[in-house]
Amino acid sequence: MFGLLDPVLAGSAAGARMDDGAEIGGDAHVAAALVQAERGLLAAYAELGVLSRALADEVAPGFRPDVRSLASSALEAGNPVVPLVEELRRRTENPDAARWIHRGATSQDILDTALMLIAKDGIAAAVEDLASAASDLTRLAVAHRDDPAAARTLGQHAIPITIGARVAGRLRALGRARRALLDVAATLPAQLGGAAGTQASFVELFGSELAAQLPAAFAAATGLVAPLAPWHTDRYPILDLAHAAGAAIAAMGALATDVVTLTRPEIAEAALQRGGGSSTMPQKHNPVDAILVRSAAMRAPALVGQLHLAAGLAGDERPDGAWHAEWPVLQELLRLLVGAAARTRALCAALTFDAQRARANLALSDGLIVAERLALVLKPRIGAVRFAEVIDRAAAGEPLAVLLRALPEASETEIDDLLDPARYTGRSGALVDEAVRAAGDEGIR
Amino acid sequence: MFGLLDPVLAGSAAGARMDDGAEIGGDAHVAAALVQAERGLLAAYAELGVLSRALADEVAPGFRPDVRSLASSALEAGNPVVPLVEELRRRTENPDAARWIHRGATSQDILDTALMLIAKDGIAAAVEDLASAASDLTRLAVAHRDDPAAARTLGQHAIPITIGARVAGRLRALGRARRALLDVAATLPAQLGGAAGTQASFVELFGSELAAQLPAAFAAATGLVAPLAPWHTDRYPILDLAHAAGAAIAAMGALATDVVTLTRPEIAEAALQRGGGSSTMPQKHNPVDAILVRSAAMRAPALVGQLHLAAGLAGDERPDGAWHAEWPVLQELLRLLVGAAARTRALCAALTFDAQRARANLALSDGLIVAERLALVLKPRIGAVRFAEVIDRAAAGEPLAVLLRALPEASETEIDDLLDPARYTGRSGALVDEAVRAAGDEGIR
Amino acid sequence: MFGLLDPVLAGSAAGARMDDGAEIGGDAHVAAALVQAERGLLAAYAELGVLSRALADEVAPGFRPDVRSLASSALEAGNPVVPLVEELRRRTENPDAARWIHRGATSQDILDTALMLIAKDGIAAAVEDLASAASDLTRLAVAHRDDPAAARTLGQHAIPITIGARVAGRLRALGRARRALLDVAATLPAQLGGAAGTQASFVELFGSELAAQLPAAFAAATGLVAPLAPWHTDRYPILDLAHAAGAAIAAMGALATDVVTLTRPEIAEAALQRGGGSSTMPQKHNPVDAILVRSAAMRAPALVGQLHLAAGLAGDERPDGAWHAEWPVLQELLRLLVGAAARTRALCAALTFDAQRARANLALSDGLIVAERLALVLKPRIGAVRFAEVIDRAAAGEPLAVLLRALPEASETEIDDLLDPARYTGRSGALVDEAVRAAGDEGIR
Amino acid sequence: MFGLLDPVLAGSAAGARMDDGAEIGGDAHVAAALVQAERGLLAAYAELGVLSRALADEVAPGFRPDVRSLASSALEAGNPVVPLVEELRRRTENPDAARWIHRGATSQDILDTALMLIAKDGIAAAVEDLASAASDLTRLAVAHRDDPAAARTLGQHAIPITIGARVAGRLRALGRARRALLDVAATLPAQLGGAAGTQASFVELFGSELAAQLPAAFAAATGLVAPLAPWHTDRYPILDLAHAAGAAIAAMGALATDVVTLTRPEIAEAALQRGGGSSTMPQKHNPVDAILVRSAAMRAPALVGQLHLAAGLAGDERPDGAWHAEWPVLQELLRLLVGAAARTRALCAALTFDAQRARANLALSDGLIVAERLALVLKPRIGAVRFAEVIDRAAAGEPLAVLLRALPEASETEIDDLLDPARYTGRSGALVDEAVRAAGDEGIR
Repeated sequence: MFGLLDPVLAGSAAGARMDDGAEIGGDAHVAAALVQAERGLLAAYAELGVLSRALADEVAPGFRPDVRSLASSALEAGNPVVPLVEELRRRTENPDAARWIHRGATSQDILDTALMLIAKDGIAAAVEDLASAASDLTRLAVAHRDDPAAARTLGQHAIPITIGARVAGRLRALGRARRALLDVAATLPAQLGGAAGTQASFVELFGSELAAQLPAAFAAATGLVAPLAPWHTDRYPILDLAHAAGAAIAAMGALATDVVTLTRPEIAEAALQRGGGSSTMPQKHNPVDAILVRSAAMRAPALVGQLHLAAGLAGDERPDGAWHAEWPVLQELLRLLVGAAARTRALCAALTFDAQRARANLALSDGLIVAERLALVLKPRIGAVRFAEVIDRAAAGEPLAVLLRALPEASETEIDDLLDPARYTGRSGALVDEAVRAAGDEGIR
Repeated sequence: MFGLLDPVLAGSAAGARMDDGAEIGGDAHVAAALVQAERGLLAAYAELGVLSRALADEVAPGFRPDVRSLASSALEAGNPVVPLVEELRRRTENPDAARWIHRGATSQDILDTALMLIAKDGIAAAVEDLASAASDLTRLAVAHRDDPAAARTLGQHAIPITIGARVAGRLRALGRARRALLDVAATLPAQLGGAAGTQASFVELFGSELAAQLPAAFAAATGLVAPLAPWHTDRYPILDLAHAAGAAIAAMGALATDVVTLTRPEIAEAALQRGGGSSTMPQKHNPVDAILVRSAAMRAPALVGQLHLAAGLAGDERPDGAWHAEWPVLQELLRLLVGAAARTRALCAALTFDAQRARANLALSDGLIVAERLALVLKPRIGAVRFAEVIDRAAAGEPLAVLLRALPEASETEIDDLLDPARYTGRSGALVDEAVRAAGDEGIR
Repeated sequence: MFGLLDPVLAGSAAGARMDDGAEIGGDAHVAAALVQAERGLLAAYAELGVLSRALADEVAPGFRPDVRSLASSALEAGNPVVPLVEELRRRTENPDAARWIHRGATSQDILDTALMLIAKDGIAAAVEDLASAASDLTRLAVAHRDDPAAARTLGQHAIPITIGARVAGRLRALGRARRALLDVAATLPAQLGGAAGTQASFVELFGSELAAQLPAAFAAATGLVAPLAPWHTDRYPILDLAHAAGAAIAAMGALATDVVTLTRPEIAEAALQRGGGSSTMPQKHNPVDAILVRSAAMRAPALVGQLHLAAGLAGDERPDGAWHAEWPVLQELLRLLVGAAARTRALCAALTFDAQRARANLALSDGLIVAERLALVLKPRIGAVRFAEVIDRAAAGEPLAVLLRALPEASETEIDDLLDPARYTGRSGALVDEAVRAAGDEGIR
Repeated sequence: MFGLLDPVLAGSAAGARMDDGAEIGGDAHVAAALVQAERGLLAAYAELGVLSRALADEVAPGFRPDVRSLASSALEAGNPVVPLVEELRRRTENPDAARWIHRGATSQDILDTALMLIAKDGIAAAVEDLASAASDLTRLAVAHRDDPAAARTLGQHAIPITIGARVAGRLRALGRARRALLDVAATLPAQLGGAAGTQASFVELFGSELAAQLPAAFAAATGLVAPLAPWHTDRYPILDLAHAAGAAIAAMGALATDVVTLTRPEIAEAALQRGGGSSTMPQKHNPVDAILVRSAAMRAPALVGQLHLAAGLAGDERPDGAWHAEWPVLQELLRLLVGAAARTRALCAALTFDAQRARANLALSDGLIVAERLALVLKPRIGAVRFAEVIDRAAAGEPLAVLLRALPEASETEIDDLLDPARYTGRSGALVDEAVRAAGDEGIR
């Protein structure tokens, strides 16, 4: 739940729920994934022919555990798998089926596999939202391909850019984030190593050969990838996941940061069609989605770091704290991913740019925004000393155009061209074209 | 909730619930605190005489909001106060009372105040558990005041210590943590600054003088401390809280780390009377409480850091993401505090030490554990060269006692004394006495 | 050193060096502190009468170790104390003095004490810079006590505030940070526990009574506070330090965030008299100090978190990695503190506000900035429905003043008053007065 | 430098220096990389034919900037590129060459590119050390392929494993880390976007077509990869780097954690041939390399998180603090990578296992270590109730072998087999074979 103080996560409730209504990454989703993992193990047994499919199917079909009671029973054991297995056995009437539940497995096999399952669902939801957001950015980039605006560095005007080029940069980032999420989703491995990652119980039960085939069968049954080896204390799948999720949230955060800046009333180059209003201050249209995406981008990094810490302290065959520290952190990171993507989708759908206002802001420095170009063109003609003098006088308040037109070395037409910010946007247009083409190659239009 | 993947937090469910059954730090607790803050504002109005007490009391007495619906309504506004106020107004039949709800306040006034309220409850629970844990440590420190054991540095044996002295160090740390939590709880301020921390709405409604008195009245009504000034973007109360909670969890984490080490079967100087068993490996008695406290100690630091980050980016009169990043992080830190304290209490209640095994471990280095003492005593007599030779031969396998007894410069009695680890525990006993006395001064026995 | 990629730290080089030219928190400073700790131990011996003062003084007076060679020798031992002690012994001609060097002490005694010493120096430098910054803020708050400006929440205009009130908030925060640093500096303890925190070596050498007095004598000799007990694995001094430093950097970060926002050319309510220029873009006056302080506020939180982590994993009598993880992190946090304070001092000295521009920005919403006040005053008179209609039409573009003047329920004079942002700044002036008075009480004017 | 309080980093000084003696990741290395980037730009101009190669070569050949003076000059500008360019121009006698220095580029082009260059060098050093470490692990895994040992979960004995299988897990992780570092090194892009990522200056100077080719030419000249687009505020290369470096350090940290545990004197299944000794406690052989690798694994996660944070706040065309926060953090992460790899290499070279001691530890639970197997085999025969009774009596102290031999359902030979830990190591041997084969495929033997 955790919705009350976490509107980012709750964001997922709006756009991204599982078919059965469970919020992605929520406790009900986790519980369902644990059941799915236990049933997947039975399906793997059936696939390998050591258990009849009929018996496998007798185990808790359609069972949805009561989350609250499961959580409370998890207290004693320190993890939810132990009470879940007991509950599954209780609910399975046929004792021949019941004794196959969790057979040979360890809690970590089920829990790690379930984490991969919710990760897969979370990524699927996020990827869809990112595609929608990217599609909107594509549209905006094209529409504003050549509209000049002030590029800002350290908060100050630097040189011109186009609105389109700025959007194209964020489009590229979202597209890459989406691709990386899809890539990592295609590698998420099942876990099936038994108590110490040696599969000893499976070897005992079924012999070495079948035991060696079991992880792949389990992976197939759960829709995951067969692990090269048990990864009980080699947490690379968690870190790969953290990287893709964290980088995606960062990409969204940078976009949201732009939006918050550009929708400030003094800048006003961007607007959001909808947004949180304030009951007492009717003039306010909060960029609430952007704010929350930014808050996600401030929270996700520590979670990514935590997962690295847990991986680095994963000693023995199951570590003395680090594994337990992983679960809630990964769960929260996934929820942030899903929530931030839903918010980013809404944000991009509502986003508009004001080319006229962007042009007005460009004029704020009375032409000095193209000072770099002036330097490139005029310095070789009039020398550094005279050039500096012009700029100094302009910075002190004299109209730059007047100062420039007084130069005998340049024609009036040339000065007009030099002072036009739209003539100093470099490869902005090409950057838009390239980003849009790359998005198109990924099916985003 | 988040119980399924977070047995540390769920730990609080066992030992620490509010009177009304709400889990401390859980969503129901937060919702209740929000209502308490809104009602506290009405009580403050009544106290200042601008609203009749009867009207104030008509607002939603005993109201417990539906957490799920509130969370979902919070989506649009980006925070739960907006829908809560609407709900409160809907439920208040008397329009004369209804129009006073949230009057002049901003969401942040209510949310920040509610955070302080749940912090206070969380600290109260943790402090009680820490007192119980400290009491058990006091008992253990006294019982094992003089039992020698190997002090370990970087995993290796260093010199002797006593079990009591080791416990006394952890006792001091828990006692200090408890004191710091009590101290910070006594400083938690209410928040009442209006939309921008200027109290403009309150000045408009009631005049400057009453407006100036309002925060103190609000603080009194909610059981908090009157703020020196609004702290909407000056987040020191959050950081003070983070410090006390984080330091307390760290103190528990260090203790739990000792317990995990000392209960390893090869070391076995400590044991836990109860602990998570394993259904498939009956020989295992997991130090599950210690493991979970350690996992909390691995998670809390990032949360403390997050709160510092949010404080450092708290620009404008309400920041563009940093404030929203604070709520769930503080909530989780409080839940970790409560859960870790409950686990630590259980841990200390179950903890026993095995003085005999500690002595046996001391003997593992065949006397070299007192090499530092030997150096202090013998080097001046036999010179560094001969001393090094003795130690080298001992390290290579010759019995140290035999080598030492062969020295003409020392009597046999003296060698016996020198080789007795119990004779080289320094101020161990005094450290126990001082720690126990200090605990007693705080009422812990 | 680390100056090349860390201009924040390098900031300290400008304003804050030790008398001997060592950069605060730099390696030379650390090396000097290690020597100071070793010499302090000898002074303590002399104070307790077990060593003659003359002999104590013979040890490496004025010795400044070669940092590079010391660092390289530290490789083998894993800490710099071991090679330092060897070097000290080599350089001390009188063998009667030489054998007293480091006598009874452990590396951690010296290293922990040295960390406290550099912390003290770092705090002294930061505190001086913070006082200067606070003094400038005092001046600015008074000068702009009543100048109205737009208060901004989530990037949008909320209601008016005064420039002075905004500054006063940051002044209060810097003042508190300074006070907290002074407080923590007054509690920094020496460390003297011997190899396992039991002081066994000292008891062996001097007997229990003298051993018990030794830490206080050592603290006196080094200018630190006597520890209540060895804190080798009870890292509260580190956490208290981290809290004060982190909170101070956060306070500076929030101020810098304001400055970066307010100096944006579109907002331009603040300016910096000096600042990093750009050679190719002469119009740019980067708020480089503010940018760097913000970067410090983005880096410090993780360091604070790291120190909590190290404290929570401080098992045994010296932990298996956590202690070593502390040193560089604490060093960097101290350098960030010193550097950020120097930058903040420069920032505040250069900071100016433009009251006229602030007024112009206030007008951007055509009066809607006082919508909250209008609601408070007019809703009771004209009802919520008609009020909403006025606001909606204003938000859609009709001049608000015209709409309001058309209301028969309000006089023209009253409307003029209502629309004046300067009339809705609440307790802004009083907040300035209170903050300035509090600063004055701390000697800041 | 930072060597004094950072022996991990200093570790790199031992094994990994650049040809010119600069410590990898140190300031001299950074300065050299900045010069390399500036010269690479000139080489790119020459390659594209806009500048003669002779002129390009006239710029500061073999120039090594003075780090200290450069760092100090960086104070004003906020980054080291500005003073470096000035210095380069000063040192270039031919004005025709001098005016081409840094032409069209922005500080970020040079700084970001230099960061990639030091990353590449750092990875090269780490990869070599990891290969050596992996080679040693391969040898150890093979040597101990079938030696049984206790697998430990949550600090307690779980079931048997083989020493080889444990080592094989760490071998796989180091191998994957090495591969991932090589992969990321092959993707590190140059940066060349000009002041706002639009390449406007280059378009102005050379026209669109040449400007479009310039980044690839620059990348070729510096040995980096051509960027798809400027990544000035799209920091994916930094995050990919952080992922690979962080995951590598985590893999090393988990190995080091095992070593610290297994070399504890009570466990003693592993030993290090060399290691930090203690002058006062000659019996101590600190696993100093392992301790420092663990400390790196505790520090790196926060750095990885910091880089995600900076990426998520990378707004505008150069962010207001986040970019500056990246440099020192990335530098430190690289130095930790290099240092940890050097330490891990030394660690693996010194590592030995004691198969006999491992067997002795296996016996500590008097056979209960194979309780899982007993359950699998015997429960079906004797029923759960009788089985539980046997285990309970064994846990209470009765000899398990005696209890089992009293069962009529099992033969003595079978009981002997069941009780032999070496007969319950599952796929341990196969896991070794697979890991060694995979390492061999990567050229590690």
